[in-house]
Amino acid sequence: MIEVEKKTRSAAIIGGGVIGGAWAARFLLNGWNVRLFDPDPEAERKMSEVLGNARRSLPMLYDRALPPEGALTHVATIAEAVADAAWVQESVPERLEIKHKAIAEIQDAIDPEAVIGSSTSGFKPSELQEGSTDPGQILVTHPFNPVYLLPLVEVVPSPATDPRATAWARWVLGSIGMHPLVVRQEIDAHIADRFLEAVWREALWLIKDGVATTEEIDDAIRYGFGLRWAQMGLFETYRVAGGEAGMRHFIGQFGPALKWPWTKLMDVPELTDDLVDAIADQSDAQSGHLSIRELERLRDENLVSILRALKGRGSAAGALIANHESTLPKEASPDAELLPSIDRTVPIDWTDYNGHMNESRFGQVFSDAADYVMVHVGADADYIARGLSYFTVDIRIRFLAEAKAGQRITVKSQVLQGEGKKLRLFHRILDADGAEMATGEQMLIHVSLEPRRACDPAPEVLAKVEALASAHAALPRPSDKELM
Amino acid sequence: MIEVEKKTRSAAIIGGGVIGGAWAARFLLNGWNVRLFDPDPEAERKMSEVLGNARRSLPMLYDRALPPEGALTHVATIAEAVADAAWVQESVPERLEIKHKAIAEIQDAIDPEAVIGSSTSGFKPSELQEGSTDPGQILVTHPFNPVYLLPLVEVVPSPATDPRATAWARWVLGSIGMHPLVVRQEIDAHIADRFLEAVWREALWLIKDGVATTEEIDDAIRYGFGLRWAQMGLFETYRVAGGEAGMRHFIGQFGPALKWPWTKLMDVPELTDDLVDAIADQSDAQSGHLSIRELERLRDENLVSILRALKGRGSAAGALIANHESTLPKEASPDAELLPSIDRTVPIDWTDYNGHMNESRFGQVFSDAADYVMVHVGADADYIARGLSYFTVDIRIRFLAEAKAGQRITVKSQVLQGEGKKLRLFHRILDADGAEMATGEQMLIHVSLEPRRACDPAPEVLAKVEALASAHAALPRPSDKELM
Repeated sequence: MIEVEKKTRSAAIIGGGVIGGAWAARFLLNGWNVRLFDPDPEAERKMSEVLGNARRSLPMLYDRALPPEGALTHVATIAEAVADAAWVQESVPERLEIKHKAIAEIQDAIDPEAVIGSSTSGFKPSELQEGSTDPGQILVTHPFNPVYLLPLVEVVPSPATDPRATAWARWVLGSIGMHPLVVRQEIDAHIADRFLEAVWREALWLIKDGVATTEEIDDAIRYGFGLRWAQMGLFETYRVAGGEAGMRHFIGQFGPALKWPWTKLMDVPELTDDLVDAIADQSDAQSGHLSIRELERLRDENLVSILRALKGRGSAAGALIANHESTLPKEASPDAELLPSIDRTVPIDWTDYNGHMNESRFGQVFSDAADYVMVHVGADADYIARGLSYFTVDIRIRFLAEAKAGQRITVKSQVLQGEGKKLRLFHRILDADGAEMATGEQMLIHVSLEPRRACDPAPEVLAKVEALASAHAALPRPSDKELM
Repeated sequence: MIEVEKKTRSAAIIGGGVIGGAWAARFLLNGWNVRLFDPDPEAERKMSEVLGNARRSLPMLYDRALPPEGALTHVATIAEAVADAAWVQESVPERLEIKHKAIAEIQDAIDPEAVIGSSTSGFKPSELQEGSTDPGQILVTHPFNPVYLLPLVEVVPSPATDPRATAWARWVLGSIGMHPLVVRQEIDAHIADRFLEAVWREALWLIKDGVATTEEIDDAIRYGFGLRWAQMGLFETYRVAGGEAGMRHFIGQFGPALKWPWTKLMDVPELTDDLVDAIADQSDAQSGHLSIRELERLRDENLVSILRALKGRGSAAGALIANHESTLPKEASPDAELLPSIDRTVPIDWTDYNGHMNESRFGQVFSDAADYVMVHVGADADYIARGLSYFTVDIRIRFLAEAKAGQRITVKSQVLQGEGKKLRLFHRILDADGAEMATGEQMLIHVSLEPRRACDPAPEVLAKVEALASAHAALPRPSDKELM
């Protein structure tokens, strides 16, 4: 639709509530410029609160810095917002006549090549397209709260949507770290919300009948299948449960349950005042000791930690984050200067009971810095796959300042020795003002992974190691007290 | 019901399939003796496979060793299995007449004070109790796969169940690290399976109508709400989504959706051969490149990593694991010997692309070892809450051998210096055979946390530090090459 190279990365956000504001934050933190339109007089305050949450948590997902943040502009009209936009995200209230009015105003002022994604959770794209001058540029792009952390976005075209608009949606949403799930046919509520609605309906009955409280229902989910679903979803979980007998066997076992009396609760319970009160009161008893802002913080820190755990395993949403990370820009590094080996944010799962980065995570930073040096000399993933690597055999770390969650840190690395099997590195961790936070002196030995024993590097790697050591010999060396 | 001190921790497992075998594993790894009855000639092989999975993963959840594993005995009759049992877990096939027959045989031979928990996912306890000689000792204890990792167990008494049986169930299940959720009223399928059934029904329709494949449905869950549910469940998530306006506002917004046409899919789709084939074929395309054993391994490693991430945050199932860990036995440590500061398993989230424990996690082990020494001298959580702590300022680590996921490691710690603000420690990490894997020399400085600066320890802590340093001065010291 639009050639990426020719377009500025500029997005228009129409409607800046919880969803729209979080869309804006995700675009901004991925380096897009954003123009936001919301007639609410409180819009700027609300946006800055959402952006604050996003700034704290999204960069923590990655072990590399995100691109420089884009520029946010609050504008007074839809026309101003969309004029320059390659992407328009509509998140106005969930009433069809309001959506139609907003879309008409957007299409009056928009680049005909741009695409309009709607955050609607319930309407079909064909409903949004009714009466439109150009239905081809409209589709549903339905995200999940908090939009700045959860990667899922349901992309739903109608038959009238231009296939190039769908392709552009996939590219744009992938570029800001999301998982665009293209839905094959438009249906009410797309996919995920159908599940949420089914569970919500059952939950209402359980509360109405006094079988369980809100907290007991939450516990039934988060101590059980919620942990499975975070990584495998429904079918892969059941495939494992079916065992070697396979999916057909599992369906045979579980299928009949559908005919059992459980299904009697498929009627919809009436939302009487009594039922609403019961839910609200139970929810207060469960979570009322925490403000919504504290709950948001808790949710985001847990999401960051779970996503990072999956990233460590290379699974599910964690694999997506690792892939996105590999597209983030890296600083070039000539041999004649110290290597800019690390540029990142301290994630929440690196902190301990003292409220700061645990001492072992300084070692993690140096381990990652050594990985950067290895890649620089050609000892990269392919090299390791060939059965060769470097192992650390000795390290000394001097701790000079505390590091806090969310803090940006960088590392400059120097090769002190690079000959034969030996690679001796010296790293300095710096804060955002360039002040020194720790130093690390690290001895690595080149190894063959099978069998595991020391050996000389491949000639092309050794040549690069020697060249780097030679160039770095001309730079200032660490003092004696900084060395072992 | 049964006074804990007077009973041996002895459990009978009736039925040793995927569920029964995993129950056996959870009891064994928590130090219970287990007698297992299963007439399947393959029972021993199946049990050893499940136990292998459990031995690898369950100990990884904890940062302290589990108690010595209990003894497993395969027996030929139900009578032999239950004779000495304080707990009987029934996991025979899900047909009421089979359950009744097993329960009758159990009750013929059981201690009248023991309790029978049934793993049934669908039957009510009153149905299980029909025709029983002693209905009071029967209840439902419904677990979730994999039972050795997922903490949820639904405890469902009927009106005829002895309340002391329910209390005993809570104690027993809590003692093996589970979260016993006592269900207030018996209903078909208890709580969690009602949700699973509702989602399964919607999923069948989506596949039948060609809206989504099994993989797309799994993605809709694991990139989105699955990540929320793993930590907060349904209601707390929605409480946050409702924002400051609260739960009533949220219900007002979401409630009407129940009346929308989404609910048209509440009929049950017929499980035709075509539909079963479609699901099985899509599941093969999605996951068929991995064997069930590989999928189990993947699932368990992901669960361990997610649960450990939540443990780091003190949230949901992670908080439960931390609580259980605090009940695990600790070795006593007289001042005159090296301190047994660490005894644990290397968890999967500590490994890196080289297939071994990342170098930084050796630092984690030394950091945890220093915590043990701190507690030993009285610088414990209460002391830190008073605003005093020790911070590491310098460390040197020598790496001597690789450590692998699942490996048991211990640390012996020596106080080299303990005077004024200074505490200098020396640690050796040992493998299960006592071979040295790494050494760490660590200088800590005592600090006041507010403002953050060095200060002398409280007198009672300083006295203990000095006594320990003096006692350890009589022990062999590390050699010069082991020190900075």
